[in-house]
Amino acid sequence: MEMWFTEKQTKSFGITAKVKQTYVSEQTEFQKLDMIETEEFGNMLVLDGMVMTTQKDEFVYHEMVAHVPLFTHPKPTNVLVVGGGDGGVIREVLKHPSVEKATLVEIDGLVIEYSKQYLPEIAGDLEDPRVEVKVDDGFMHIATSENQYDVIMVDSTEPVGPAAKLFEKGFYEGISKALKEDGIFVAQTDNPWFTPELITKVFKDVQEIFPITRLYTANIPTYPSGLWTFTIGSKQHDPLEVQEERFHDINTKYWTKDIQKAAFALPKFVSDLLK
Amino acid sequence: MEMWFTEKQTKSFGITAKVKQTYVSEQTEFQKLDMIETEEFGNMLVLDGMVMTTQKDEFVYHEMVAHVPLFTHPKPTNVLVVGGGDGGVIREVLKHPSVEKATLVEIDGLVIEYSKQYLPEIAGDLEDPRVEVKVDDGFMHIATSENQYDVIMVDSTEPVGPAAKLFEKGFYEGISKALKEDGIFVAQTDNPWFTPELITKVFKDVQEIFPITRLYTANIPTYPSGLWTFTIGSKQHDPLEVQEERFHDINTKYWTKDIQKAAFALPKFVSDLLK
Repeated sequence: MEMWFTEKQTKSFGITAKVKQTYVSEQTEFQKLDMIETEEFGNMLVLDGMVMTTQKDEFVYHEMVAHVPLFTHPKPTNVLVVGGGDGGVIREVLKHPSVEKATLVEIDGLVIEYSKQYLPEIAGDLEDPRVEVKVDDGFMHIATSENQYDVIMVDSTEPVGPAAKLFEKGFYEGISKALKEDGIFVAQTDNPWFTPELITKVFKDVQEIFPITRLYTANIPTYPSGLWTFTIGSKQHDPLEVQEERFHDINTKYWTKDIQKAAFALPKFVSDLLK
Repeated sequence: MEMWFTEKQTKSFGITAKVKQTYVSEQTEFQKLDMIETEEFGNMLVLDGMVMTTQKDEFVYHEMVAHVPLFTHPKPTNVLVVGGGDGGVIREVLKHPSVEKATLVEIDGLVIEYSKQYLPEIAGDLEDPRVEVKVDDGFMHIATSENQYDVIMVDSTEPVGPAAKLFEKGFYEGISKALKEDGIFVAQTDNPWFTPELITKVFKDVQEIFPITRLYTANIPTYPSGLWTFTIGSKQHDPLEVQEERFHDINTKYWTKDIQKAAFALPKFVSDLLK
């Protein structure tokens, strides 16, 4: 018997992957959590039926959400990751020697536990002494933080279920307050092919709060359309004006100095969404 | 009853699209040809089970295969498209006022006929007086052409079936001969996630024939991995050194001046394939 997992990325389009085995299929307090082994992409974390990360292509998302804002900030010291219980963003954050503390606030402790077990090369650095892991509501954590972080990364699920409020304007206002006076934040903001209106909405909301707002993209094969967007809100530092000397050697598979710049060159139909 | 079309892009991964109706399902002299209407991507041309083009995302491939080499050449006058029977590349070629003649050589006349019928906004410009359509073997056409074209675009299917020989080194040697002394060619060369060895092979082959060889990418949701590559071989003009004044206004949905440059910034795992 062949087992195939299919994610309907829209009502009428999806991806399908051959499954070798199912490790976990569990309803947590917050969402349906599946951890499966696929033939093409290795182990895969699926939340509420949506692919979150896979062993084969995880590096794209994690590198691009982390390094673009971290290289934009002149000296990121205190970093917060909201969501991201698989630990991949934290792993990339720790590649920056200026970072003294990285806090992860993940609402669902089981995401962390199962990631440590089945995605150890992604979650392994959650044990690093610079990392503090809090199993808590990211929205509440932001609401109670003030003038604290240099860089905040919002590594959320889609704007349905537990993460819906992480796409509201009030959340971005909280982030602004939680950031220091030259702080930067980034959020994953889905794809321009199937959810263009989300990109427009978030960009407009962020633009009303942050003096510098930018959108960039990366190719992620297991995410809808393969073209993922990230929205940056920044108080002072412009990602389009990063100084060359900020770049230091890091071990990456997707990110390069050239990609850091090129990622902000948007296809015309994408830049049209921001007008 | 719901009908879904599934393309297995690898042995263990694919895309699946809800089908509203099937217009054509026919074995031609060269390949299986299906023309279907999908809910998400509109009308879709499928050859040997592989998505060739769709109404919703066709503009990416057609703009990027055409405009990048055409803006690299200082004055493209005589242009050849090998394959591309849907007419989308021709449509983009004709946006360049310097082009006096555009020849399309498509091996399968039924691709042209059904595209005119079901993809009229893609194939419509095949009727333009500057266009000559030849239903013929592109490999043979190249083999019998000499010092003739400014720009050649290879808009082939995958390297299985009728297009297999369009990925051989001998074909690129023929292209070099068919080009004028400052000619440029581009070929679609699949994706780096599932067929990395093809990219490496073609790049090496082209490098042995052309003094300037470059790879660039574009996001195409219905193509495997969403990240498509194009390989350029050029005798004199370097796509990385295009002069700003070459750019003129054209009506596009993906291509921009910035994209023309940014498309050559490769993710590290992709540039590693070219070493």
